[in-house]
Amino acid sequence: MTDCIIVGSGMAGISAALTLKANGKDFLLFGSSSLSEKIEKAEMIRNYPGLSSVTGKSFVSALQKQLKEMQIEIKEEKVAGVYAMKDSFSVMMQNQTVYQSRSVILACGVESVKQIDGEEAFVGRGVSYCATCDGFLYKNKKILVLCTTKRLEHEINYLADIAEKVYLIPMYKDVEINRINVEIIRKMPLKIEGGKRVEKVVFSAPPIENLGTELAVDGVFMLRDSVSPAILVGGLQTQDGHVVVDRAMATNLKGCFAAGDCTGRPYQYAKAVGEGNVAAHSVTQYLK
Amino acid sequence: MTDCIIVGSGMAGISAALTLKANGKDFLLFGSSSLSEKIEKAEMIRNYPGLSSVTGKSFVSALQKQLKEMQIEIKEEKVAGVYAMKDSFSVMMQNQTVYQSRSVILACGVESVKQIDGEEAFVGRGVSYCATCDGFLYKNKKILVLCTTKRLEHEINYLADIAEKVYLIPMYKDVEINRINVEIIRKMPLKIEGGKRVEKVVFSAPPIENLGTELAVDGVFMLRDSVSPAILVGGLQTQDGHVVVDRAMATNLKGCFAAGDCTGRPYQYAKAVGEGNVAAHSVTQYLK
Repeated sequence: MTDCIIVGSGMAGISAALTLKANGKDFLLFGSSSLSEKIEKAEMIRNYPGLSSVTGKSFVSALQKQLKEMQIEIKEEKVAGVYAMKDSFSVMMQNQTVYQSRSVILACGVESVKQIDGEEAFVGRGVSYCATCDGFLYKNKKILVLCTTKRLEHEINYLADIAEKVYLIPMYKDVEINRINVEIIRKMPLKIEGGKRVEKVVFSAPPIENLGTELAVDGVFMLRDSVSPAILVGGLQTQDGHVVVDRAMATNLKGCFAAGDCTGRPYQYAKAVGEGNVAAHSVTQYLK
Repeated sequence: MTDCIIVGSGMAGISAALTLKANGKDFLLFGSSSLSEKIEKAEMIRNYPGLSSVTGKSFVSALQKQLKEMQIEIKEEKVAGVYAMKDSFSVMMQNQTVYQSRSVILACGVESVKQIDGEEAFVGRGVSYCATCDGFLYKNKKILVLCTTKRLEHEINYLADIAEKVYLIPMYKDVEINRINVEIIRKMPLKIEGGKRVEKVVFSAPPIENLGTELAVDGVFMLRDSVSPAILVGGLQTQDGHVVVDRAMATNLKGCFAAGDCTGRPYQYAKAVGEGNVAAHSVTQYLK
């Protein structure tokens, strides 16, 4: 059992990790060793105190150096779900590993992708965010896969190994998928429809060549860098897609804190850094 | 009339200034060109994302460089009072200048000095925080001066020019006051007592040599780097010495925001930076 699990390696997660480390706490930090695509892609940041006119790339380098100096390791596993137990949390990874922690800091960012009509309604009934968790359910079936980042192409390949047919909507450039059973669609769906489970995906007019405006599928996979916190954590209170927190960054779940873009606007590095810091102090207080 | 007045040049004030500048707003930033004694004196800061194991001194240098690059000027005037008007604020300086602003960000830090029993009760009735504002009231009178920082020694000299007798309690090293009418006391007072106005200051036993445990004075000057926000801003809601704010850093006064240590713990650079940023965004929103 660790003291804390931090979900996300953007500014908020890193800030929380640095402060938990300074406070002598045990924790696991889940994210990406390249930290955050959002930071990396920033052309020039002018309003972050202490770093004058820094590019996203050099900001990321500075943070990576700092994490190394502080001996903080980023575990490159993706979180599939967070479950509140009596006095602790079970955090399930997409690779099926389960970790136990006394507290959690959600720093999972905000989805830049709009949800699709019907998406949330069919979660667990045909809509999935994790290829390795749920892929096996679609052996010899038809699925639609929306993928926001090239980084997750290995998951598309994994699904193509299992499913009979994969309709792929890539939301990035330089697609490198060459599979006979993968068909690329360059149009966003309007909504997901079905009964007990997902039955079809509907597109707006005009119809897609050879396919029309409706696609019969058994499942829809949303492969995204970030998953909506409400979907990640059962029972978590959210409002307009943001986690509801108080000034101490506490959520409605005891021992679960949140920081950064997932708690709402402004989506700013400085805000995320401040909230990560406060969340880490609140965790330290909570663990007493 | 300016868009915003920022009170304080610590981390919160600087963060707010950088973001207001980036948002193209007009503002005045009041503080010290050496920014903040608290930052400057920090031996080593390890948990501020982006700057690895930085000393307070080099942090201050980095910030000064950044302010220069962004063409942000710090006005070295001390704020004596903030008054909420109908749709704007009047900000009165200790040098009697008055500025008008559409909004205010309080980033005035937190007093590291405990209030003295009776201090708040006698504000305006013998207790003052501003030598140049109220000094003239004590011509040929006896006063007690508590001074927390060498930086304000010129105010002690100013008071010694006016008053008949100055009892000085310096709370710093290397006192450089050599005036015939200034007597240094190395003991903190217990309480301030009087009727309509201040009459005496009481010390704990044992008695001070040649003075005893009571000192008859007409006034008490508290020369501090930061003044309690509740004293600075009339009608401001505070709790346990901290300004009450919501998640948008709004106070109970419309158009008045607060950020940094003055809003409460943890007293951390990262928190102050985040709150300054959020306050600046809220001001930008408010000015619309």
